[in-house]
Amino acid sequence: MKSDIEIAQAATMTPITEIAEKVGLSFADIELYGKYKAKLPLDVLKKFETNKEGKLILVTSINPTPAGEGKSTVTVGLADAFAQKGTRVMVALREPSLGPVMGVKGGAAGGGYAQVLPMEDINLHFTGDIHAITTANNAIAAFLDNSLHQGNPLQIDPRRIIWKRVLDLNDRALRHVTIGLGGPLNGVPREDGFDITVASEIMAVLCLATSLEDLKERLAKIVIAQRYDRKPVTVGDIGVAGAITMLLKDAIKPNLVQTIEGTPALIHGGPFANIAHGCNSVLATKTALRLADVVITEAGFGADLGGEKFLDIKTRQLEKTPDAVVIVATLRALKMHGGVDKTDLTLENKEAVARGFANLKRHIQNMQAYGIPVVVALNQFESDTEAEIEVLTQLTQDLGVEISLTQVFAKGGKGGLDLAEKLSPMLQEKADFHYLYELETSISDKINKIVTEIYGGYKVNFSDKAKRQMREIEENGWAQLPICMAKTQYSFSDQPQLLAAPEGFEITVRELIPKIGAGFIVALLGNIMTMPGLPKAPAALKMDVTNEGKISGLF
Amino acid sequence: MKSDIEIAQAATMTPITEIAEKVGLSFADIELYGKYKAKLPLDVLKKFETNKEGKLILVTSINPTPAGEGKSTVTVGLADAFAQKGTRVMVALREPSLGPVMGVKGGAAGGGYAQVLPMEDINLHFTGDIHAITTANNAIAAFLDNSLHQGNPLQIDPRRIIWKRVLDLNDRALRHVTIGLGGPLNGVPREDGFDITVASEIMAVLCLATSLEDLKERLAKIVIAQRYDRKPVTVGDIGVAGAITMLLKDAIKPNLVQTIEGTPALIHGGPFANIAHGCNSVLATKTALRLADVVITEAGFGADLGGEKFLDIKTRQLEKTPDAVVIVATLRALKMHGGVDKTDLTLENKEAVARGFANLKRHIQNMQAYGIPVVVALNQFESDTEAEIEVLTQLTQDLGVEISLTQVFAKGGKGGLDLAEKLSPMLQEKADFHYLYELETSISDKINKIVTEIYGGYKVNFSDKAKRQMREIEENGWAQLPICMAKTQYSFSDQPQLLAAPEGFEITVRELIPKIGAGFIVALLGNIMTMPGLPKAPAALKMDVTNEGKISGLF
Repeated sequence: MKSDIEIAQAATMTPITEIAEKVGLSFADIELYGKYKAKLPLDVLKKFETNKEGKLILVTSINPTPAGEGKSTVTVGLADAFAQKGTRVMVALREPSLGPVMGVKGGAAGGGYAQVLPMEDINLHFTGDIHAITTANNAIAAFLDNSLHQGNPLQIDPRRIIWKRVLDLNDRALRHVTIGLGGPLNGVPREDGFDITVASEIMAVLCLATSLEDLKERLAKIVIAQRYDRKPVTVGDIGVAGAITMLLKDAIKPNLVQTIEGTPALIHGGPFANIAHGCNSVLATKTALRLADVVITEAGFGADLGGEKFLDIKTRQLEKTPDAVVIVATLRALKMHGGVDKTDLTLENKEAVARGFANLKRHIQNMQAYGIPVVVALNQFESDTEAEIEVLTQLTQDLGVEISLTQVFAKGGKGGLDLAEKLSPMLQEKADFHYLYELETSISDKINKIVTEIYGGYKVNFSDKAKRQMREIEENGWAQLPICMAKTQYSFSDQPQLLAAPEGFEITVRELIPKIGAGFIVALLGNIMTMPGLPKAPAALKMDVTNEGKISGLF
Repeated sequence: MKSDIEIAQAATMTPITEIAEKVGLSFADIELYGKYKAKLPLDVLKKFETNKEGKLILVTSINPTPAGEGKSTVTVGLADAFAQKGTRVMVALREPSLGPVMGVKGGAAGGGYAQVLPMEDINLHFTGDIHAITTANNAIAAFLDNSLHQGNPLQIDPRRIIWKRVLDLNDRALRHVTIGLGGPLNGVPREDGFDITVASEIMAVLCLATSLEDLKERLAKIVIAQRYDRKPVTVGDIGVAGAITMLLKDAIKPNLVQTIEGTPALIHGGPFANIAHGCNSVLATKTALRLADVVITEAGFGADLGGEKFLDIKTRQLEKTPDAVVIVATLRALKMHGGVDKTDLTLENKEAVARGFANLKRHIQNMQAYGIPVVVALNQFESDTEAEIEVLTQLTQDLGVEISLTQVFAKGGKGGLDLAEKLSPMLQEKADFHYLYELETSISDKINKIVTEIYGGYKVNFSDKAKRQMREIEENGWAQLPICMAKTQYSFSDQPQLLAAPEGFEITVRELIPKIGAGFIVALLGNIMTMPGLPKAPAALKMDVTNEGKISGLF
């Protein structure tokens, strides 16, 4: 079987100018980055804002296995299926982070015959957005430490600096560091740490901003430290909101690329789905909705995590809610939820599929509770058996929900035609969307609602630290913000080993972190890793480039 | 008077496709980055390698004041002057580093009416080259620390790790850090530090590489640490030379932009001129020489530092030596060399000019000693008086050297026409170039030659550490590499306060650092700052961007 990169390199790309024309964009509307990438200036959105808004399909999934269930692949393949049916369609995806690409993943732009191209560029530096965010994030840190060094006029407590530096790499040795060593000419010594860039609040800010103006306002509000009197210190307070916005003036423009079948794709922004909300940028999705009749987008991890945050956080900025939701499942993952050991997932086990269905069922009901119609996409693997598929199909249909066997990895858009057919009638109806919670309710009520109604938990406990932080948040007038849950992606609960559809469990909120620029309060339910490490044999060991510039080892 | 950015923003840029056509490049030859920037794929060099090689003019300067003497400005203006005379000309410059732009400089792409455009982009992220270098540099560090963490199979001594992390920012608090704290899951604790990206050996490697193949070979040879047995550990040893080359596959392509008068300019690479060699990339200069009849380039700091390294390091890779050298001087700097206090430099002082001329004179004679014809460019400032100019002119002409009053800052190319006229006849002759030293001579002989013949010093002392390092370098077979002197730019000596043309001084080499990827041995003559700090009021405080994306505060 061909690897993803071999399939990608064998594909013939269409010049991006022609891809742009498919959705009515002329050469003058776009900024080329090489022959196969372009940025869309923000005035494109203005120019087309009177276009009728397209229909929005959100692709999410059950609680995944570590390998992921193929959400991006289904998203891309589904778009190509709509394109094959003659629909004017666009994909709106997240940008991959280089750290995991060099570490474990090797690549993250769909897979098989459902990929976005040029996959090498998208997986590496792309158009530089993430590098701009790294730079902006670290410039704030440098200005902050310079303020400490230059007499500390803002009375910043060096023990209470929240803002960390970032790199777009997996680098565990930077998780906990001390900086400012070497005497008085070299800054003020303090504890510090590095996150991966996609965990930076700036990434979340960029993805939720609705204009350059909004971006600057949000950046100014980011809380980076506390004073000795515990009052918050913001980016605005240190006087660099303008400079930081300037550093992001190009990063905020959505990136246009194409799927392997030539469907226009906007790939823009990629915040972590645990510590942040895990969706591509509002501006990209907004733009796609004005350019295409159908837009397919995805949210990180499962429907309980990225899905919930898409609906309760992103849509409030997007001013558009999904017309349909696709929940991606694999038999492998369902069997895992059914109690099968990781090493036995390729063996037929109908009973385990039936037991694991409990996970899918709760996700279906959760999405339906928002008032959005649901279709299940079974992302097919070679090891799937007819009998297992029949069990799953029956159980899903018993809920009155349609299920589609998708084979987009092996067949591209053709393998998603059935899914597109099942979605099409839903797009004719107006979904009766309603939020899970109102912003005006208290922080604890909002978290309670998520835990009891989405996770199926019984009760929320708050640590003493979280209680203190809740008071500070209320005192600062931030209590009306939505909640960004930071929990494991593997379980509905805060315990990765509680698979399927656990009940009666309690959840402990360890910390509440105000992300005022992003505009949400992070509720930390466990040790969330914000700087991954490298494995013993990093994927990079196999990466190479020929003398002619051809890349190998991305996969 | 208009600021640089106001002049830049008032200029009408020509689409980069038309700029490319001026030197025979078609749309298919270039990779657009927006409408006014492009990258030149390396096969452009191959395509045009049979073109006749153009003439090369090197712009260098006297020992500068902290503000610099306007070398880039003269370089750009001189190119525009040649263009006005109808010559097919290109500029080849270095990329500005973002750290100093945000810190003190505010911008570094020429000045006044002798600038390169789009100045905002060039001063900020440009085409992402420096970000790619940051990422490549830090990926090596992450792989190195991961190797320590994963059982240390290479027996790397964590106390003898040479490779530092980098950021393209001024951030003094990162000069000395400890990393790997927080217990066994978070790496191996050790001392570390961050440099600014332009001080990374990768920047020097990128600028001296002659192909992607050569780049990979050089990257593999970079020494990053010592084992417990003191044997060197290289990037090749940790197995990521391919992956790191892959990260640089686009950064190695020269960037095409334009001067304010529409002259094609290649801006590519920007290594520090102290710790590294301080010149733009070999590939950019080589490419320019095949595309244009006259190429104007510059080297960092004074002729003793960047100039010497251009001639003794870069030209060996370039396989082309300058046909003429321009030494830029200002009356302000000459007066400073003549003993005038910094606050009085705008007051007329003919005697100080005459005394300070000693500095210029030694630089002239040094360049002549290489066998290259010299012209002095007096970069005019408003405070310059007729009488002072006459003193300088007379003294220069007494040496048989021509001097040209350049007014390119105020007048653009027109202000450099006289300089171009004076250079033109020199370009008809073949310069009788010879290197200062042969590579085969010993390290101490090479350093001795630079110190006595270029600097005018009396003697070189080596610290015990440097002596030990010299032995290690010899044992490892690296003694045939050229020397990259790392000293203050303000004086011929290693003491910044020794102005004009000091004599009889001794120089102490504190350390010898092998940069095997770059292919030179750094001789450290003092505390060279490889991570600048921010001033009390950083330039960034004044930077901003409007809601429409227009930038202010770069200057």
